[in-house]
Amino acid sequence: MEKVIPIKVSKDMKVKDLVDAMAKTGFGARKIGLAAKIAEEMFSDKECKVFLGVAGAMVPGGMKQLIIDLINKKYINVLVTTGANLTHDLAESLGHNHYHCDTWNDEKFNKEGYDRIYNVLMKNDVYGDLENFFSLNWDLFKDITKIKDLLSKIGELLPDNSNSILKACYKNNVPIYCPSLADSGIGLMIWGRLAAGKTIKVGAFEDMNDIIDFSWVSKRKGVIYIGGGVPKNFIQQSLQFSTAANYGIQITTDSPAGGGSSGAPLVEGKSWGKLEHDAEYVDVLCDATIALPLIFSRFL
Amino acid sequence: MEKVIPIKVSKDMKVKDLVDAMAKTGFGARKIGLAAKIAEEMFSDKECKVFLGVAGAMVPGGMKQLIIDLINKKYINVLVTTGANLTHDLAESLGHNHYHCDTWNDEKFNKEGYDRIYNVLMKNDVYGDLENFFSLNWDLFKDITKIKDLLSKIGELLPDNSNSILKACYKNNVPIYCPSLADSGIGLMIWGRLAAGKTIKVGAFEDMNDIIDFSWVSKRKGVIYIGGGVPKNFIQQSLQFSTAANYGIQITTDSPAGGGSSGAPLVEGKSWGKLEHDAEYVDVLCDATIALPLIFSRFL
Amino acid sequence: MEKVIPIKVSKDMKVKDLVDAMAKTGFGARKIGLAAKIAEEMFSDKECKVFLGVAGAMVPGGMKQLIIDLINKKYINVLVTTGANLTHDLAESLGHNHYHCDTWNDEKFNKEGYDRIYNVLMKNDVYGDLENFFSLNWDLFKDITKIKDLLSKIGELLPDNSNSILKACYKNNVPIYCPSLADSGIGLMIWGRLAAGKTIKVGAFEDMNDIIDFSWVSKRKGVIYIGGGVPKNFIQQSLQFSTAANYGIQITTDSPAGGGSSGAPLVEGKSWGKLEHDAEYVDVLCDATIALPLIFSRFL
Amino acid sequence: MEKVIPIKVSKDMKVKDLVDAMAKTGFGARKIGLAAKIAEEMFSDKECKVFLGVAGAMVPGGMKQLIIDLINKKYINVLVTTGANLTHDLAESLGHNHYHCDTWNDEKFNKEGYDRIYNVLMKNDVYGDLENFFSLNWDLFKDITKIKDLLSKIGELLPDNSNSILKACYKNNVPIYCPSLADSGIGLMIWGRLAAGKTIKVGAFEDMNDIIDFSWVSKRKGVIYIGGGVPKNFIQQSLQFSTAANYGIQITTDSPAGGGSSGAPLVEGKSWGKLEHDAEYVDVLCDATIALPLIFSRFL
Repeated sequence: MEKVIPIKVSKDMKVKDLVDAMAKTGFGARKIGLAAKIAEEMFSDKECKVFLGVAGAMVPGGMKQLIIDLINKKYINVLVTTGANLTHDLAESLGHNHYHCDTWNDEKFNKEGYDRIYNVLMKNDVYGDLENFFSLNWDLFKDITKIKDLLSKIGELLPDNSNSILKACYKNNVPIYCPSLADSGIGLMIWGRLAAGKTIKVGAFEDMNDIIDFSWVSKRKGVIYIGGGVPKNFIQQSLQFSTAANYGIQITTDSPAGGGSSGAPLVEGKSWGKLEHDAEYVDVLCDATIALPLIFSRFL
Repeated sequence: MEKVIPIKVSKDMKVKDLVDAMAKTGFGARKIGLAAKIAEEMFSDKECKVFLGVAGAMVPGGMKQLIIDLINKKYINVLVTTGANLTHDLAESLGHNHYHCDTWNDEKFNKEGYDRIYNVLMKNDVYGDLENFFSLNWDLFKDITKIKDLLSKIGELLPDNSNSILKACYKNNVPIYCPSLADSGIGLMIWGRLAAGKTIKVGAFEDMNDIIDFSWVSKRKGVIYIGGGVPKNFIQQSLQFSTAANYGIQITTDSPAGGGSSGAPLVEGKSWGKLEHDAEYVDVLCDATIALPLIFSRFL
Repeated sequence: MEKVIPIKVSKDMKVKDLVDAMAKTGFGARKIGLAAKIAEEMFSDKECKVFLGVAGAMVPGGMKQLIIDLINKKYINVLVTTGANLTHDLAESLGHNHYHCDTWNDEKFNKEGYDRIYNVLMKNDVYGDLENFFSLNWDLFKDITKIKDLLSKIGELLPDNSNSILKACYKNNVPIYCPSLADSGIGLMIWGRLAAGKTIKVGAFEDMNDIIDFSWVSKRKGVIYIGGGVPKNFIQQSLQFSTAANYGIQITTDSPAGGGSSGAPLVEGKSWGKLEHDAEYVDVLCDATIALPLIFSRFL
Repeated sequence: MEKVIPIKVSKDMKVKDLVDAMAKTGFGARKIGLAAKIAEEMFSDKECKVFLGVAGAMVPGGMKQLIIDLINKKYINVLVTTGANLTHDLAESLGHNHYHCDTWNDEKFNKEGYDRIYNVLMKNDVYGDLENFFSLNWDLFKDITKIKDLLSKIGELLPDNSNSILKACYKNNVPIYCPSLADSGIGLMIWGRLAAGKTIKVGAFEDMNDIIDFSWVSKRKGVIYIGGGVPKNFIQQSLQFSTAANYGIQITTDSPAGGGSSGAPLVEGKSWGKLEHDAEYVDVLCDATIALPLIFSRFL
């Protein structure tokens, strides 16, 4: 049996060393440490393709750069995320920012034109610039049939120096799947065009084949789920209908007991054929904005 | 100031009376009681249209009948839910059941052909029957352009005595929106047809106009969010781009602190223009399988 | 395998029937139903002594009457609770009330003399009356050596018609253990006397023998833990140093993953010898103010 | 308004720099960063006395060394903790260890003599050595009247090189308050002596005066609450009956909505007079084993 080693921290300690030390403690810190180890195995396995699922407002939460850096360093093969994250990413690419708010008055924010996301604010006028973007570029979108191609086209259109998830995926040829894109600001901008009489050919089911095919041909697979939601489930079902994952890291604050997919521990996936019986995996019950920098700093 | 009245329960007490008594206690019980009161106001307001968003595996969790009964009693005008819930609903309509499991061994379940959803099991062979359903009826789906019309057609096809959410919505002319239908067993069945060379015309953004239009023309609105996720967000954004809600009930176990939409308290919606400044609303932090029967039994 | 039966609720449904129906659903509702069944077994087992541990502010939360009624009906043999609960119970016995507050401004409450407990308020002037009570009755306390005897004496002193946990325990000869009584308003009142030069003989460890002895001589045992904390742990360690429990119900919203006793699932107790290997038990992840009336109404 | 700055991590990044960068992000990471800033203010304020409340099994969780180092560096003036933490600390001082367990079988652990605390194990035979310790040293304890003096005596008795919270507090003259010491392994060992006919003079209320007095004479105060429980409440009530805190950091995973003290946000303390209206404070919703090293590494 392995002993718990009390963690010894110091002012000049590196994050990597802290996380290695956490692996020797208990409770959640142990799990942060195990997640970093599993990420090391996942990323150093040459046969392994990595599926990253990102729910939750990770861009307003300040996690954009970390995701971009993982993509630029070629650690990620498939990204599945929410329309909200991509909308925030696009808004920042168009020059907008998010802002801190440690206390709040939502009626006042409404009057002043700010939208609140817990302790972060976005200016409501981002929608004007988003609308311009889609209005100006509509002709380039109108014949696209897949959501991932639409997102790739948006990435292509952004300035080359754009510090954006959409741009990083475009440059690195990482497909972005977003089955619920209609459920987002980007979706709303497209609705605006449709309401103005334009048409679009993007199908609701056209992307499924690509992700399931890619899962089929990937010999070994690693999954990283942040926050659960549609991104997790869309990867999980692609594994279910191809072959199971060999590595898994889940970061969520949801409880398993409610029965929802977001809180379901990875081990449940074994019953569905989504996780190999001999897989390496860990469930980290932690705010992703805290866990992500700890687990992934060593790779960046 | 109103006094807290210690709750007095008894063996013959009715649920309705319990919930009325809960409204006079503190903490979560108080909120269950307030939710029932707000539901009464929402349902008795003749001008008010009710948007119900259902995330989480409410069908395996045994909440199907309650949702059906609310629809049959005309309390619900719009349903937004996940593909998973509709897949489970369809599977039960095709003769399948869900099963209890109070302890678990996921590797054994996998070998025996059971898929686990926390303390509930589904037989993996439901997928065979789902596939048959879509294979047999494909010609009826192939020219449909909207997800809600596809779901309505499925409802139409189910036997008249089918005890199903899909059927109840069809019969009562309640539209079902499901922006992430691709992310579900139903989506997988459609993928199966596409992979076999069939085509489908359902667009990714075609439903948005209908729900936003309906929100625009509804003078007053009530929202009921179970579990958050895409269903909540899709309703919220439709309100944001039309007019805000007058009544709100949210049932979730997610914490606000993670920054995700599922745990975001309703009041946050005021900043976005999703909730009227003078709205009646309550956030219930409770497992929905416990909260739903308490709050809604009085209407059924 | 047992099928999940969708719950059918109706306006005249009794709580008992709802809970029986919940036992046939999934997720948390299933657990509420199982808890009621285990309570039935526990309460109908003639050899079984019941240890109730109550943490959390259950008196401000409106659960006082339910606890009193369980005691008066002889379902409870030992009560372990926090000093806070007993302080609130005593304050109500002295004529004070708790009040609703659904929104809050803590600085304003402070200026107006209200102390907030989530969505409940207490007037700060309760402390004056508590002080009088201890000042007037001090001579009756000064030679007591055990916390449980001190609490029994307080119960004895309350008016006969006092609707109080302290009184109910006194009348029914149910010992109240409260190892952290110093950590409460009652403790503060005693400190006030000591600071004024009085003395008291109550020992910090004197109660342990009684509860461990009682546990030793009880052939079979049931435990009900509300909220965890010291009350749960004090019962658990008494079992550990005598014999394990045969029945267990735990109601908490704490996550197991943090490693604390409050969130630790009952099964963990098997390793410690606190729970029999063949025990009937269930962990209910729910706000106790919602779960308690559901589980226990059938007995009252 | 301050912009959210996406966090940029790198393999050689120091923990301190990570935490400073977290302060510029959103959600939980923002709060970790704010907590470190508040700790800097608290620790550099010469007039400020620091009260540390530690609930939860922080010793098995591997946080012992960090707490010892904070004490040795003179950052802590008063420690309030649970008997469980001190028991684990004493067990390690007597040569025992804790062990990892990432999967579990509690019946097997029971047979093999291991007690489980989530993902950590303790050998059940620690109790034998604890018993010997108290048996051998009983004469030194028998005339002590205060819990804090008993704990100080235990610290004194441990070998000088003992890497222990008890020893560090003894050496640095930091009082340890533990109002529920009876509720712990140390309590059980004392019960064992009492059951064997020994006597002890430690009073249940004798420590209160010292902590309240110290709070009275401290011009400015900072509180750090880990996990809530009795340690938090005992400090809070001491502030309530003297003067309020000027700085506050709370680390817990408990939800406020249940009404318990452990999850109550610090701001609630303003209504009670436990927190100054102009205090600097932050509530960190995070597993303490993850949050503590992040927040405090810069001081060690």
